[in-house]
Amino acid sequence: MRMVDIIHAKRSGEELTDEQIQFFVDGVVSGSIPDYQTSALLMAIYFQGMTEEEQSSLTMKMMESGDHLDLSSIPGVKVDKHSTGGVGDKVSIPLAAVVAALGIPVPMISGRGLGHTGGTLDKLEAIPGYQVEISESEFIDQVKKEKCAIVGATGNIAPADKKIYALRDVTDTVDSIPLIAGSIMSKKIASGTDALVIDVKTGAGAFMKTIEDSRNLAKALVGIGKGVGMKCMALITDMNQPLGNAIGNALEIKESIELLKNNGPEDLVDLTTTIGGYMAVMGDVADTPEAGKQLCAEVIANGKALASFKAMVAAQHGDAKVVDDPDSVLPQAKYKIDLPAKESGVISKIVADEVGVASMLLGGGRQKADDKLDYSVGIYLHHKVGDQVNSGEPLLTIYSNREDVDDIKDLLYSNIEVSSSAQKPTLIYETIE
Amino acid sequence: MRMVDIIHAKRSGEELTDEQIQFFVDGVVSGSIPDYQTSALLMAIYFQGMTEEEQSSLTMKMMESGDHLDLSSIPGVKVDKHSTGGVGDKVSIPLAAVVAALGIPVPMISGRGLGHTGGTLDKLEAIPGYQVEISESEFIDQVKKEKCAIVGATGNIAPADKKIYALRDVTDTVDSIPLIAGSIMSKKIASGTDALVIDVKTGAGAFMKTIEDSRNLAKALVGIGKGVGMKCMALITDMNQPLGNAIGNALEIKESIELLKNNGPEDLVDLTTTIGGYMAVMGDVADTPEAGKQLCAEVIANGKALASFKAMVAAQHGDAKVVDDPDSVLPQAKYKIDLPAKESGVISKIVADEVGVASMLLGGGRQKADDKLDYSVGIYLHHKVGDQVNSGEPLLTIYSNREDVDDIKDLLYSNIEVSSSAQKPTLIYETIE
Repeated sequence: MRMVDIIHAKRSGEELTDEQIQFFVDGVVSGSIPDYQTSALLMAIYFQGMTEEEQSSLTMKMMESGDHLDLSSIPGVKVDKHSTGGVGDKVSIPLAAVVAALGIPVPMISGRGLGHTGGTLDKLEAIPGYQVEISESEFIDQVKKEKCAIVGATGNIAPADKKIYALRDVTDTVDSIPLIAGSIMSKKIASGTDALVIDVKTGAGAFMKTIEDSRNLAKALVGIGKGVGMKCMALITDMNQPLGNAIGNALEIKESIELLKNNGPEDLVDLTTTIGGYMAVMGDVADTPEAGKQLCAEVIANGKALASFKAMVAAQHGDAKVVDDPDSVLPQAKYKIDLPAKESGVISKIVADEVGVASMLLGGGRQKADDKLDYSVGIYLHHKVGDQVNSGEPLLTIYSNREDVDDIKDLLYSNIEVSSSAQKPTLIYETIE
Repeated sequence: MRMVDIIHAKRSGEELTDEQIQFFVDGVVSGSIPDYQTSALLMAIYFQGMTEEEQSSLTMKMMESGDHLDLSSIPGVKVDKHSTGGVGDKVSIPLAAVVAALGIPVPMISGRGLGHTGGTLDKLEAIPGYQVEISESEFIDQVKKEKCAIVGATGNIAPADKKIYALRDVTDTVDSIPLIAGSIMSKKIASGTDALVIDVKTGAGAFMKTIEDSRNLAKALVGIGKGVGMKCMALITDMNQPLGNAIGNALEIKESIELLKNNGPEDLVDLTTTIGGYMAVMGDVADTPEAGKQLCAEVIANGKALASFKAMVAAQHGDAKVVDDPDSVLPQAKYKIDLPAKESGVISKIVADEVGVASMLLGGGRQKADDKLDYSVGIYLHHKVGDQVNSGEPLLTIYSNREDVDDIKDLLYSNIEVSSSAQKPTLIYETIE
């Protein structure tokens, strides 16, 4: 078998065989296929797509290229959640605690942020002491005892995906649905979860800019998951404006804790409990997503979810006092600079990705994979799309460790629109089951 | 400027700017752009194409990446010919001599064969002593004195193309019209010729399988040539069956000499004198292609073209006795094995590329760039498409240095069809001026 013939087949719109995909994945891992052939195939896949069978095959081969976590010693249906990534999307953090409080084991393996999107692990590391790298046995023990853990990938998970992802990033083949689907699902299948809810973000701050692309990705993800016997569903949710009010690592931890104290922003609460509702059904504690959502609201109201979060933080060596007094534990920015509205009206647009870029430029995100983060900085939105504002009133507060933030102000002003009228945007567009 | 943004622009169907193309070509030559990014861009170009402006820009930047031959010391209009490559296509060899015999300088820079197609340089090297690598000054002196020379590229011609071509070969991006056009024309412009006739082969044995693709390539080539002030035209000619009767290096030299002795096969004579006719017009010795074709026929009939060929061979240190007695000078195969017709009828198909593969498998061509050639082997067709054959009569003779050629026989039988009737195929489909 020759790699050039595999490239030719895909370039010509043919369906790759299982053997061809195996040859490709093996060659990527062993290094016998040079990067220039891999990138040519990736670009051909970008243009020609992949059938469901090809996507499943690619996912399984990438999954099988590395370690597979065995969670069978944890009793019950293990339920995980994945987001395709957005700005202000800290849902995983309160959600893990909420679902754990329902008695469902949540073994969550998360990632780090790059570019305008934040990463769950980065946010958790804003809590002094919090360890995201723990051993496989510690991870399993914690999920057994506390019902939830949020960690980085342990061991050698899907090394083929790791190599392919690195190439996609520099060859502009990131936003290919079969490649995204294979990347996400190979890792999720390897992580050993029984059930998975996928939050497919759509809009300016997401990989998928249109509902149609998002729907295609959601279908691909759910199809692959179900194909291997996983309980799997997806929601398509808005990422035109940031989610919640806080953007930035420590700010998002604080907002997550506020939510668990029954004081979260409306959109974040709605999305967290909606996803939790589906996880409750998968975890066999609710008959319908609506009933599950109600259960989630209850464990938030009665403090059980907050207790779960506190236990998880403590188990992972984080300073659990963060729950009681976030500001005294979390790193604080030196300057808090308000951005006043220039005119009165209704906010009609807050461009999510550019707000993410602003937070990144303050030091809260990475431009390159090895950039160090400043956990304390970020942006706090006092208003969201559809809210009335008066001229001079602060639209948002910039949390910064440098005094001169004129560049950030300019960037934010040019990405927030105030009009005479605007609707509150839809938060959840559709579900794919 | 970042290469990933250039890939993104092309992938999204945008037109690349001059600056972007310069950045790309510079980076390829300096090595600052890694191969995996180059191959991703090549695949994106394959799918999205290039505008005329982009093609010209890419060609010029590749040309400027290396040396430029200065032929201005040679008096008269320098005329060259290029073929996109086929099976049995030895036209350049007699043609250079024919046009030189008209008094027109023909400084021909040719290439080697790969896969099923032969290369002019390989064929000439079947003549003992023939040197294709001579210095630039020797080349110029020879064209001044003998009016023709056929040599390999001297110096550092279009190094960007060299690198890009090597990558295209292994990433299945060879048959992209803008990339083919840029590759051919960057070298031809660098070679310093004033005028160029391009023979764009079409059909089973050619890169371009359809008339439409061939026409698009021809238009791209002629457009680029005219854009830099070169006299330039193209013919689209048949490569469904091999050209002439001989396939194989020594066999094709012998057939070329036969042609110059006024004893060539009909199709080869027709194509050689037709192309020569256009070159005669470009070289200012004929008013019309038809008149030029007549002049070519005359220098073949009166022996002047044969004399030019003999002089060229001698000047390039080849054994000029080859002209008088080809068989005593050229390497001879040990076995000559006839392939008899299995039935009577009219030959309706001789699949060019597979006949080329058969010759390659006998040792006459290269599977890999560093394969050594056996000049003596090949295939001699006794009949062409449209010819009547009787059962048992030899269709062709296999020239081999191994006795067992059952694999070659099987391959040839399955690629030659005898039917109840068939037309002689069209040789020259159209011209692009």
